[in-house]
Amino acid sequence: MSGEFVEAPHQDVVLFSRVRLNRNYEDLPFSGKITREYADEVVRRTADAVLGSEQGHAYAMIKLADLSEDARSSLVEHHLISYDLLRFAQRSAALISTGKTVTVMMGEEDHLRLQGLLPGLQLERTAELALSMDEMLSEKYAFAFDSQWGFLTSSPANVGTGMRACVVMHLPALTAAGQMGPIMQAVAKLGLTVRGLYGEGSETLGNLYQMSNQATLGRSEEDVIRSLLAAAGQIAGHERAQREQAEKQDMMKLQDTLLRSMGEMMYARLMPVNEMMRRYSDVRYAASMGYVHASLAELDNLIRELQPGSLAVSAGKLLSSREGEILRAKLLREKLPGLVAN
Amino acid sequence: MSGEFVEAPHQDVVLFSRVRLNRNYEDLPFSGKITREYADEVVRRTADAVLGSEQGHAYAMIKLADLSEDARSSLVEHHLISYDLLRFAQRSAALISTGKTVTVMMGEEDHLRLQGLLPGLQLERTAELALSMDEMLSEKYAFAFDSQWGFLTSSPANVGTGMRACVVMHLPALTAAGQMGPIMQAVAKLGLTVRGLYGEGSETLGNLYQMSNQATLGRSEEDVIRSLLAAAGQIAGHERAQREQAEKQDMMKLQDTLLRSMGEMMYARLMPVNEMMRRYSDVRYAASMGYVHASLAELDNLIRELQPGSLAVSAGKLLSSREGEILRAKLLREKLPGLVAN
Repeated sequence: MSGEFVEAPHQDVVLFSRVRLNRNYEDLPFSGKITREYADEVVRRTADAVLGSEQGHAYAMIKLADLSEDARSSLVEHHLISYDLLRFAQRSAALISTGKTVTVMMGEEDHLRLQGLLPGLQLERTAELALSMDEMLSEKYAFAFDSQWGFLTSSPANVGTGMRACVVMHLPALTAAGQMGPIMQAVAKLGLTVRGLYGEGSETLGNLYQMSNQATLGRSEEDVIRSLLAAAGQIAGHERAQREQAEKQDMMKLQDTLLRSMGEMMYARLMPVNEMMRRYSDVRYAASMGYVHASLAELDNLIRELQPGSLAVSAGKLLSSREGEILRAKLLREKLPGLVAN
Repeated sequence: MSGEFVEAPHQDVVLFSRVRLNRNYEDLPFSGKITREYADEVVRRTADAVLGSEQGHAYAMIKLADLSEDARSSLVEHHLISYDLLRFAQRSAALISTGKTVTVMMGEEDHLRLQGLLPGLQLERTAELALSMDEMLSEKYAFAFDSQWGFLTSSPANVGTGMRACVVMHLPALTAAGQMGPIMQAVAKLGLTVRGLYGEGSETLGNLYQMSNQATLGRSEEDVIRSLLAAAGQIAGHERAQREQAEKQDMMKLQDTLLRSMGEMMYARLMPVNEMMRRYSDVRYAASMGYVHASLAELDNLIRELQPGSLAVSAGKLLSSREGEILRAKLLREKLPGLVAN
């Protein structure tokens, strides 16, 4: 089932793995009480440390105040910074590695949020990326740490490991089969939460779900990663079984439904983002079944490029809702054929 | 608006023109009372006359009893014979010209139904085709004719000229604008009727309508042709104005709607005939507006090839409903791209 184009582990079901570590410099006030001066000091010392390090040449420094709103949104749409970083856009900044696998966010709820990001299900390697950055920085500066509680953070919810690990999964077959309710209940017992990647609650645009750990206290990083990895692997297995089940039940009907979305994407002249996410889900499902031969990673990337902020950045101007729909449809028609081998 | 591919007059709106003449041999009993022997005589003498004539080599003789039900349906789907001819399939036959512009039906409600058929709006030339055949046959045999009533026919509805002229029109914009009701009322006053080509009543599959004369008595052939021609020309004008209106109102939305049907036809794996007719209407509309560059005549022909009977003939076997939908979708994917110039 996993065709020639599946580049990362479990990429037919798992879009990406992400690990974020919350850290605060011991000698500076926490964000809630921080002054502009201290906030600038967080950015200054972190940038100096990262850019002055051996891998410094591989990092780009971005001050959010220098970016348009669309450019900021684009960074969120590419999962390079957190949505929360936008709340502090006047003073916040990010160091982003050229491979986009590591981001150091500065001036969010905590001083630092160290992010590792990799395609597919590879949480251990992803955690290593974030932990290496943590190690590098803590050689130069002490982080707020308590021997009993662990790392100290602005929100009590993050105290302990300060780690949030998550995997983003594409679950169209389980969703269609009405299985997501039971799955969410089952993973809650493991201390994990599942929710829609876009939109809260019942709205799960594109059948994309993120699963992450709830607890940061009382469990080691390794333990959390292990349980998340195991749960993701199991859910991926269920999703694959459900896809095969749907194929066995009526392959032609399944192909018909999924590939018509390809046709809509190839020919539409107006493409709202919500409709694109539904079509994308169908096409990604079709690609994972080998009904079309397309690179999942390239497809995922194209869809990120066509999110509202990223689209406006590529247009180089503010877009009205209608202009966005027209440009999105145009870029789909131009780029989608190139992703598909016939 | 009428692009490079519009081959016949008014083909952007008018699919084809058809004229049928009902005739009965004076010396043989009418169909209602006909014996097998006389029915065979109708076929024998007509075939001899046509095949023995100067153009005889251009005609193929088809006995309906020799054909499968699907093959008979295919002839109806291609408008080469009347649906009614199937009712008498055990004894009826047809002579069909290689160009398919002339058909001589034998053994229907009347002894003969002489048909002319041409693409687009060219009723006068179409009538000439039928009338030439009438002339040729009447040189050899006398037709039942009354100096007061004109040609005598089985049904009183056809007495007089015995002529039914019709044009088949594609009216998606007038239909969408809710204009068909008023148009039907207006043409009724001219002694013309408009109804759906496929299905009676409100069901007008593919937005295809046939308009034909009601009266055969009291009006000359020329008069009927002239009024039908004028009405068709006017309706075509209204349809074009309505298409331009729709374009002016929101071109992107119109293109989006129409071209998505192209996408569905290009990618579907299951295509029911009713859905195909809806999609075809959109694509034909799009082609007439230049949104896709496609030959209308070739498009019309492809859709006829994909009607249930014709599809089964090309498959060479009886098709289940599902098999038909699969094969129809497959042939659309194979053949539609070839009709469209990019």
